[in-house]
This record gives sequence, C-alpha cells and structure tokens, in this order.
Amino acid sequence: MKTLATLAPLTARLLEIQHLASAAALLSWDQETYMPPGGGAARAEQLATLQGLAHDKLVSPDIERLLARWIDFQSGQPVDTPDDPWDEPSRALLREVWRDFSRAKKLPSDFVKRLGRECSLAQQVWTEARKKNDFRMFAPHLQTIVSLKQEEAQYRGYKESPYDALLDTYEPGMAVSQLTPLFATLRARLVPLLERVVNASVKVDDQVLFRSYDTSRQLEFGRMVLTAMGYDFNRGRLDLSAHPFTTSFHPTDVRVTTRVYRQELPACLFGCIHEGGHGLYDQGLDPERYGTPLGDSLSLGLHESQSRLWENCVGRSRPFWRHFYPRLQQLFPDQLAGVEMESFYAAVNRVNPSLIRVEADELTYNLHIMLRFEIEQDLIRGRLSVEDLPGVWRDKMKSFLGIVPEQDADGVLQDVHWSLGAIGYFPTYTLGNLYAVQFYDQARREIPHLSSELEAGRLVVLKEWLNQKIHRWGRTYSADQLVRRATGQPLSPEPFLAYLEGKFGELYGFSGFS
Amino acid sequence: MKTLATLAPLTARLLEIQHLASAAALLSWDQETYMPPGGGAARAEQLATLQGLAHDKLVSPDIERLLARWIDFQSGQPVDTPDDPWDEPSRALLREVWRDFSRAKKLPSDFVKRLGRECSLAQQVWTEARKKNDFRMFAPHLQTIVSLKQEEAQYRGYKESPYDALLDTYEPGMAVSQLTPLFATLRARLVPLLERVVNASVKVDDQVLFRSYDTSRQLEFGRMVLTAMGYDFNRGRLDLSAHPFTTSFHPTDVRVTTRVYRQELPACLFGCIHEGGHGLYDQGLDPERYGTPLGDSLSLGLHESQSRLWENCVGRSRPFWRHFYPRLQQLFPDQLAGVEMESFYAAVNRVNPSLIRVEADELTYNLHIMLRFEIEQDLIRGRLSVEDLPGVWRDKMKSFLGIVPEQDADGVLQDVHWSLGAIGYFPTYTLGNLYAVQFYDQARREIPHLSSELEAGRLVVLKEWLNQKIHRWGRTYSADQLVRRATGQPLSPEPFLAYLEGKFGELYGFSGFS
Repeated sequence: MKTLATLAPLTARLLEIQHLASAAALLSWDQETYMPPGGGAARAEQLATLQGLAHDKLVSPDIERLLARWIDFQSGQPVDTPDDPWDEPSRALLREVWRDFSRAKKLPSDFVKRLGRECSLAQQVWTEARKKNDFRMFAPHLQTIVSLKQEEAQYRGYKESPYDALLDTYEPGMAVSQLTPLFATLRARLVPLLERVVNASVKVDDQVLFRSYDTSRQLEFGRMVLTAMGYDFNRGRLDLSAHPFTTSFHPTDVRVTTRVYRQELPACLFGCIHEGGHGLYDQGLDPERYGTPLGDSLSLGLHESQSRLWENCVGRSRPFWRHFYPRLQQLFPDQLAGVEMESFYAAVNRVNPSLIRVEADELTYNLHIMLRFEIEQDLIRGRLSVEDLPGVWRDKMKSFLGIVPEQDADGVLQDVHWSLGAIGYFPTYTLGNLYAVQFYDQARREIPHLSSELEAGRLVVLKEWLNQKIHRWGRTYSADQLVRRATGQPLSPEPFLAYLEGKFGELYGFSGFS
Repeated sequence: MKTLATLAPLTARLLEIQHLASAAALLSWDQETYMPPGGGAARAEQLATLQGLAHDKLVSPDIERLLARWIDFQSGQPVDTPDDPWDEPSRALLREVWRDFSRAKKLPSDFVKRLGRECSLAQQVWTEARKKNDFRMFAPHLQTIVSLKQEEAQYRGYKESPYDALLDTYEPGMAVSQLTPLFATLRARLVPLLERVVNASVKVDDQVLFRSYDTSRQLEFGRMVLTAMGYDFNRGRLDLSAHPFTTSFHPTDVRVTTRVYRQELPACLFGCIHEGGHGLYDQGLDPERYGTPLGDSLSLGLHESQSRLWENCVGRSRPFWRHFYPRLQQLFPDQLAGVEMESFYAAVNRVNPSLIRVEADELTYNLHIMLRFEIEQDLIRGRLSVEDLPGVWRDKMKSFLGIVPEQDADGVLQDVHWSLGAIGYFPTYTLGNLYAVQFYDQARREIPHLSSELEAGRLVVLKEWLNQKIHRWGRTYSADQLVRRATGQPLSPEPFLAYLEGKFGELYGFSGFS
C-alpha cells in the first residue's frame, strides 16, 4: 500500500507554496487591521509578488514532473497498480492537488499578478468609497475586476455558464444549473413565510439591541463567548476591521476580526460568534497536514456552514441565551434592566427586511444572496454594466425585500467581496445556511442532552463533534461525500426550511404553518 | 551616458526580492507585536521559506547573467566604455548590488534557511527566557546561533579576524583592526570622565523619572514628540513590543515600537525618540529607488546615528525640553508639580553606571558596547563557551562599570540581538554615537538658530536637514564618503568626546576639564 510517505517530495514543495500563501494572508490581515493608510500601494505590489510566486511554484515543471509520476493527466486520476495501490489519504491528496494544479495551470502567471494587484488596490478604494458613500469612486476598480473575472472564466473553462468557472473556485463542482432550482425552491417557501411573519399579530421589538453599549465591554463579551465555544486564543486573536473576517496562517495562528458599534449590539456579538465558527474550523484542521489539501478547508459553503451554525443555530437559540443572557446583563446592568431573556431572545430573532446582508435575520438573509447571485451572473455575462449597478441594486432590493437603500453605502457598496475579486462567492453563504442546519440537526441526534450542555455553557461539546465530523477531514472528501458521511443524507433545503418554519412559526404565533 | 534605465531588467528582479524581504519583515514585526503565542513554530518555518527564497533569487543564474553584462567579476567594478560611461547612480547601484550578490553567493541556500529558522525560534525562546530569568533555557539556542555564525564567517571569508566577516554585514568595510584602537581612545577618555562625574560634588537626582506615570499618557506624549519630529503616522505606526525596534516594508510603511512602564518614564519616552530617529531615516529613503541599494539604508552605524542624534543630541538637550517640558507637565501635573525644567533636564542626563544598555546614559553607554564587543569576538573565535557567559558577563560588568547584575535578565539576557543572530551588530551602536554628534555639530553650523527652532518645537527643520544630507542618498556613497560629504571630515571620536566632556563638565560643575 502506497502511503503519504511516498508523496513526501511533493508535500515538501506544497509546504513552501503554503508558506508563501500564509505570508500573503498575513499581509492581507495587516492591511485590514493595522497597516497605516499610506502603505497601501506598496502592499498591493508585495501581495501581487507573493501570490504570483505561489502560483508560479504550483504550476512549475518541478511539480508537474512529480504529478506525472502518480497521476494520469487525461483522467486526473491517481495511477494505481493493483499490487500496490494508494491508501485513501494519498488518493485524496493526489486528487485535490491535481485539481489545484490543473486549475492554476490554466491561469497565466501575469494574469494572477495583475488580479492580485488590482484587487489589493480595489479593496483599499472600496474601504474609502464605502466610508464616503461614493460608488463612482469604486466603479472603475469594479469594472476592472469584472473584466478580469470574465477573462478568468475563459481561462478556467466551463460547460454551461462562465459563472460556473468562478463558482467552482469557492464551491468545487457547484454549478448555476444546480443552484437555480435550489434557490427557486427556497424562494418559493421563504417568501410566503416572510409574508406570514410580516402579517402576524405578534410583533417583535428589538429596540433593546440598539441602546448604548460600551464597546470595550461588547468586545469582552465577544471574547467570553469565543472562549466558551472553544476558540483558542493561544492560537488566535480578535481584532477590529471594517468588515469582519477570519484568516489563518496555520492551525496554530487563526485570527478573527469583528466590528463594534456603540449603538448596535448585534454587530460585534454575532460578528464574533460567526467568525468564531470559521475560526474553529481553521483551528480544527490537522496541523500535520498543513500545506496539503488534507489540511485545508473543503469549500466556502462548508466553511460558512460552521459560522452560520454557531451564529444562528446556537447564537440565536434559547439554550445559548439561558446561559449567556445573565452574563450579558451583568456587563450591561442598566441597558438590560427589566428585559426578560425571552424578550431578548425574540429581539435577536426579529424578522425584518433590512438593507445590510450581514445584519439580516435568518429568514431574509438568503434573499440578499439571491439578489447578488442574479447580479453577478449578469455582470459576468456582460448583460449588466457596472455604472447601472446602483440602480439595478435598488430595483432588486425592492423586488426581493420590498425596501430600497437611500445610499449606496447601504446598498451596492456594502460588501467587501467584489473588491477582493470574489465573484461567485455569495451563493456559498446560502449553501452554508443549508449545511449548517443539516449538521446541527444531526448533532442534536448524536449528542445526548445537547440543549442542556449549551444551557450550561458547555459549547465545546458541539465544537468537539464538529472537529470529529467536519474539521479534521480537510479536503479528504468532497462536500457531497462529507455531508452524507456526517448526516447520512445529501444536501437538502428541507431541514433548513423546516427549521425556519418551526422557529418563526413559534416565535410569531402561527406554529401550524401550512 | 548609461543611466538607471539600462538597468531596468535588474531592478525589476531586485524589486521582487525586496517584496519577499518586506513580507518577511512584516512576519517578524507581527511576531513581536500581535502574533498569538501558539503561532511561533509555524511562523519560524514561514520566515525561513521567505528568507530562503529571497536568497535564492538574489543568487539566481538570472541575476548572475545580468550582472555579468555590466560588472567585471574579478574586480567587482562596473565595466565602463569610455564613449558611453555609467552615470553616478548607476555605478553606485552596480557596486552595491555586486556587494550583496557576491556576499550572498557565498552562503549556501540551506544554510540561510537553517539560520532563519533557528533565529526565529531562538528569538521566541529568548523572550520567554528573559521573562523567566532563565539563561539555561536560552543557552542551547544561543550555542546553535554561535556555531551558525562561526560557519557563516567561514563562508563569507575574512582577512584578519572571523569577526570581521560578521561586522561587515552591518557596517560595510569595518574591521576589528579599526575598532580596537578607536574603542581604546574612547575608553581612555571616558573612564576618567566617568570618574570625575562620580566624584563630583554636584549630585543629580533622577527620582522624578520613576514616579507613577499613566502608560497611555506616556504613549500620548511619545506620539506628540514623534509627530513634532516629522515622523509621518500616515506612513507609520507606534506599537508595543518587548524590545523597541523599527522596521520598514517601504518608505510608505515604516513602523516603530516602544516599551512602556508605569514606573519608568525614560523607557517609553526615549524609546519613542530613538526609534523615531530610525523611522525618519527609513521614511526619508527615496521611494523611487525602493528595492535597490539606492533606496536602502547605508549601514547600521549610520542608522544608529539617526536614532542617537534624536535621542541624545536633541531629546536630552535644553532646547528640546524648553518646548516639551511644559507639555509633559500638562500631561502629568501631579507627578511634575514643583519640578523645575532644569532639574528635569539634569535627571534625564544623570550619569550612573547601570545594568541595562538601552537605559544607559550617554557616557557609560559605550562601555556596555565594548563589553559586548569583547565577548562576541571571544565567542566567535571559540575562546568562550556559551555556558560560561553569565559569569564572564558579570566579571566584565565589574571591570567596565563597577557593577554586577543580580540576575541574568538584567545581564546577559537583556538584549534581543544574539537571538536574532545579530553578532557583530553591537559595535555599530558606538559608531552611531560618534556619527550622531558629528552630524549634529554640522547641523548646528549650517542651520541658523537651530536651538531656537528646537525651543519652538520646530524639530522638522532638523529632520529636513537630515533628509537632504543623509536619508535621501541611500547607499549611493560609502559611510566614509557620506560622512565627509555631510561634515567635511572623516569619522572621528573627537566631536563626541568634546560633546560629552562639555555637557557633563557643565552639568556636574567641572567645566574646565583637563
């Protein structure tokens, strides 16, 4: 049986590439957290060099030669000899390295550098443009990025839609043809559910969340929750940034960021829990496999399932708040005096069509994604020009959510993703929502008294389950295989829809949803 | 006339190498400031990869081929054709690239990686060891580093002493044979000066510096002084670290760090001014020449001259405090109530043989350096073993300064340098002290009313003079050439000794020093 030991010459080279990628990730983290404003242009060049080098090394003749020994380049399958087959980890590693290699091979090195440089600049301009509510400042950069992503789709190749080529970067194997009916099913049930909530006689008041909360105490509470989740601060940090994110340089150095606003309790609180979910995934990857696909996260949808599971299934649940609400009250005795836990629970679950995706409730969240999914497809197909974007954004917000942003900062400028070149990324958020509930349902079946564990603040029992079922496997299995292994079922929108209908039917007093 | 334009294929490659070096510098900065403790081992590997890659790229056949077109590898001189000679910047660039290339070429790539990895680990162990006052914890790492530096000296080659090979890294062209008599001259006049001070009837009390000072106000004052010096926070930051340092990723991103202790005003104050002096040099380098020797600092001695000029000639002068003392009093009204400026001036200039180099007064400072110079030479020559170091340190402290540290944290463990592999670095501090006074004397001659400018808080006039005379030239000239151009004289200990004798003779009441 051939094992990973055989592949040592390959994994040594992958490790070097990973070091470049990890260094680039630190440069990006620093750019978002501590870099002085004047340093931006030079940083863009430095990032472009590191990313270009990592790309060059991955597609080098050196690696190609090694892969040719072990992989049939026609089929992309490991070459097996019946008397001495590859073991499972080796097969998985070869399959996934081949994916990375063959995908990277399609992109010219100059293109990779150009994209890196443009995105680093665009990201900095976006930060300013959002602050100044100035879409026109960002527009030329976005136009460049759209053109580059169209070019990328051509390089990558696709069967049906150029958008598939971009999607596949974030969610391997996913396609427009699969997402379109999935999203249609969701929309068909979410819209009537939303109508029932909006028309329900029960009204939820969330004003308690928008009182004045000292920001350093908010961060203290965020740290408390992260610690209870099992996020290891010895191998991580919490910092502030314009847009919350998680980044990892190694399972021993995984960093999360959040925002904190005095007048908005949810931003920091759910920012911490959400990014903490991502952070647990990255801290839970196998450090022995660092640098190889087996030590890498599986897909963005899977990654998002971890953040959404913690943010929503846990962080917006009664068991969680039974433990943490008294602690929150201790930190904010004046603001929360006389507010019952049940009202607070209702407040953090209030359904309300709103402008900002990251602050959206669980029900309307996916409508924000569908809107972006449509816009991105049109941008990539060239059916929509960047200059028309603010108007189209407003029209679609009206159609999906019945509301319209007054300023672009709350509309088309709200997300960092496009400035990072991350087109095709948004759908993974909805996939994450679906996976999350499917995993959480399974965890409840497998962990006796999960609710009482959470009520006692022992969130780590859930973390450990996720470590075993999800995190430790890296890219050993495809997303489809992993979901089946973990839950016994393929991905389905049913658990998610049943969860929402149950939760909001109960909260809004129409449990017998028809 | 051939200009830098001819060298574009070379400078493009140098820029890529610089990007790797700058990324490595950020990884180091992060390691000292924000990295979670668990991330250390992975960081060491990442740094080793980046440094190894930068080294490999510098000695690549690609660069060798380019250099062979323009440089005579026998003499190391640019190949000149009388009808089409190189202009001065190009000649300087070629000379200095040749220096870097030929020096790097002598080190095997594996050795560079090994050294980088060992130093990154040793640096982390040193931090812990100093905290725990545990030299034995650090000793095996130091032993490894000494062996590696001995190996390095053999690779680099030298004429007289293996230590010269290491010195040359930090102070090009400097040698033991030049330093030994220079240090002897200094010692011959510093020791009697110190004796006169110690025996003077005037006693200086510096207890005012060790009252309780709020740390965030100390940092606020540090920022105020840095800003007045012309340190640009739009292209820089101030952070905290165990050992103050300055690092640069580009002239638009130059970061300084300091320490801050509640009971020790000088640590943060002079930390900020000192590192600010370094920061001004790096911010003052020509951004158009970034990545080439013309956009790089000249030597560590020159670099240190900038920090010491600001720290001592300015930051411990009456004109400086005439402006800043009232501002410091405003920040600390209770602590400084009834303390006259003149007493404060005396306090920050108190001469007192003490244990910690970075906190030493101007007079005894160089004795700390001479001690290290002797120890380093003995370590590199193999005449002193690492395990004997704490004892030898104590003996030499007794002989040079008449005092002995009670614990290694205040003795042999106090400096970060050896853990970074920086053996041969310390002498540049004394060179910096000499250059500093020589430059400052010249600035006083050239800037009318410099004292009144400083008294008015207009420190930037001095910064601008340094920008013009020192910073902008990068490595265009050798240190010797630059000092002659800036001051009309070669390096000499005389201005420094005259400055000390004048300053402390006046302060301690024996002006007619014989």
